[in-house]
Amino acid sequence: LALLNLYDIEQAAGRLANFAHRTPIVTSRFLDALAGARLFLKVEAFQVTGSFKFRGMYNRLATLTSEELRGGVVTASSGNAGQALAYAACLHKTRCTVFMPMQPAGRPPGVKRLAAAAYGAEVRLYDRAAGNRDELRDAYARDVGAVVVPSAGHLDVIAGQGTVALELLEDVPSLDTIVVPVAGGGLLAGTTVVIAGISPSTRVVGVEPMVSNDFRLSLDRGAVVTVPIQSEDSIADALLLDHPSDIALAVCREHLSWQDIVLVDDDSIRSAVRALFRHTKLVVEPGGAAGLAALLAGIIPSPGERIGVVISGGNVSPDQFARLIT
Amino acid sequence: LALLNLYDIEQAAGRLANFAHRTPIVTSRFLDALAGARLFLKVEAFQVTGSFKFRGMYNRLATLTSEELRGGVVTASSGNAGQALAYAACLHKTRCTVFMPMQPAGRPPGVKRLAAAAYGAEVRLYDRAAGNRDELRDAYARDVGAVVVPSAGHLDVIAGQGTVALELLEDVPSLDTIVVPVAGGGLLAGTTVVIAGISPSTRVVGVEPMVSNDFRLSLDRGAVVTVPIQSEDSIADALLLDHPSDIALAVCREHLSWQDIVLVDDDSIRSAVRALFRHTKLVVEPGGAAGLAALLAGIIPSPGERIGVVISGGNVSPDQFARLIT
Repeated sequence: LALLNLYDIEQAAGRLANFAHRTPIVTSRFLDALAGARLFLKVEAFQVTGSFKFRGMYNRLATLTSEELRGGVVTASSGNAGQALAYAACLHKTRCTVFMPMQPAGRPPGVKRLAAAAYGAEVRLYDRAAGNRDELRDAYARDVGAVVVPSAGHLDVIAGQGTVALELLEDVPSLDTIVVPVAGGGLLAGTTVVIAGISPSTRVVGVEPMVSNDFRLSLDRGAVVTVPIQSEDSIADALLLDHPSDIALAVCREHLSWQDIVLVDDDSIRSAVRALFRHTKLVVEPGGAAGLAALLAGIIPSPGERIGVVISGGNVSPDQFARLIT
Repeated sequence: LALLNLYDIEQAAGRLANFAHRTPIVTSRFLDALAGARLFLKVEAFQVTGSFKFRGMYNRLATLTSEELRGGVVTASSGNAGQALAYAACLHKTRCTVFMPMQPAGRPPGVKRLAAAAYGAEVRLYDRAAGNRDELRDAYARDVGAVVVPSAGHLDVIAGQGTVALELLEDVPSLDTIVVPVAGGGLLAGTTVVIAGISPSTRVVGVEPMVSNDFRLSLDRGAVVTVPIQSEDSIADALLLDHPSDIALAVCREHLSWQDIVLVDDDSIRSAVRALFRHTKLVVEPGGAAGLAALLAGIIPSPGERIGVVISGGNVSPDQFARLIT
């Protein structure tokens, strides 16, 4: 029996119907020419709270009892999941705490931290290099009696993220390939379930930053591999995680091998952000552009294919965006 | 008898159906809170060639005979109409020449000039301060036997621009107000015709840069008034024109008075570009954000209203955009 199936994703889609945006598909003849393929961008930068993370967080909270909600919710997140949980908690009228990585010394708090706080979440900082964020989160949850909502590692979260691919396939039938960025693996796992259920001939490709290739290594090993990481290691802050979610990994292992994960460097990501600025007028954060980066860099051979590309988020500070495009 | 009526706009919509994008409506709770109203952004930054101008240019060329097309087409434009005509000319397989304003000394050619050239247009430069761009254009057209396609001053161009409001009203019924940026007045004129025909109780508001208030003065006077202008006078290059199109003015006079035109300064425009970056993840050029600028600055009293806002274009250089958002 599969860990998760299409029915779970369809249930999540029903729960999200009145709360998440059905994000548009954007196309560009210029990007198609650059990629040598027909690209269909699913723009989750337009999603509520600026990334696909809202889908999984909302879906998870929708399955909690009112008693569970009473104790509040907590997550650990580079930012997008924290922002998303903070807003989902507002909608469910419960308290929210988010563990977020400290910025390098001297840097001001990022847009994601400010947004989570603006939604009323309590933000607690941790040191990314220490690699113990889940322990901090779990200890806190025990202390205050809050429910842990992992950014990827829960089947209800993964089911929510799967609704991205569900909508994409409804709007664009017969895709040859679908490309998604990978951090904890929730989006990738949800995508594999949808593809297996609806369009099994479509290839699924995950994209990781070269310096943070823990998901690829873990798929190869068949178990969670940890790759220590620091905030300065890549511009794609949303994709910097030292190990995959074990549950997302387990779901992915039913459908993917390590060859289905490709790696991109920061220069490719920067080029993709610039191409999106110029040709589609979209503001996309580095991690959100990783899928397009792999395609424009030629890392995913796909001449003439019809390719769905998940643009997973748009939460980038004005200063970082200005540096990226100039 | 009206100069232009709803039927003309519907005909234009039919011609454009397979060539122009049906651009999306974008909404944001944050922008609504800032404006104190419900805003429906019609995002023409996503239009083919990055602005609404493609609609009018394409519609005009679609009404030319093959004999007329043989001599090529010519326009004078701050950039967006030039880019749009260049691409429309590609689609109609005819030559295109565009007169564009010189940049201040030392500045590199702008993105609009480069794009027009990339579409195969011949770009000729003129001095904006000399105020004789239409004469240059007309003299050139006589010399080479080309057809003049004015950026606003032709009923077929105006009919094409009217399709923006037509789509907006189809997607968002019962608008209290619709706000559009004004340069030559083609978009405003097309909008007034659609509103008069479909939703006469909706108020139409045009927005000009404070330094380039020729349209407001012309509506007040009941005749074309010229206000000399230089490229440095406002960041909203797309709206800097020293006089309105006489035909667009005549169409607007059937429906509007000078009080229906409001004026915005550069600071308000800058704030609107930043708000669009932050809350909607859209790349919008200064002129394209003028309508939102007027709403956020409180210049159009509209508490609680449902307001359609035309975001008219997104052609902005990386350097200018970086300066705008930081």
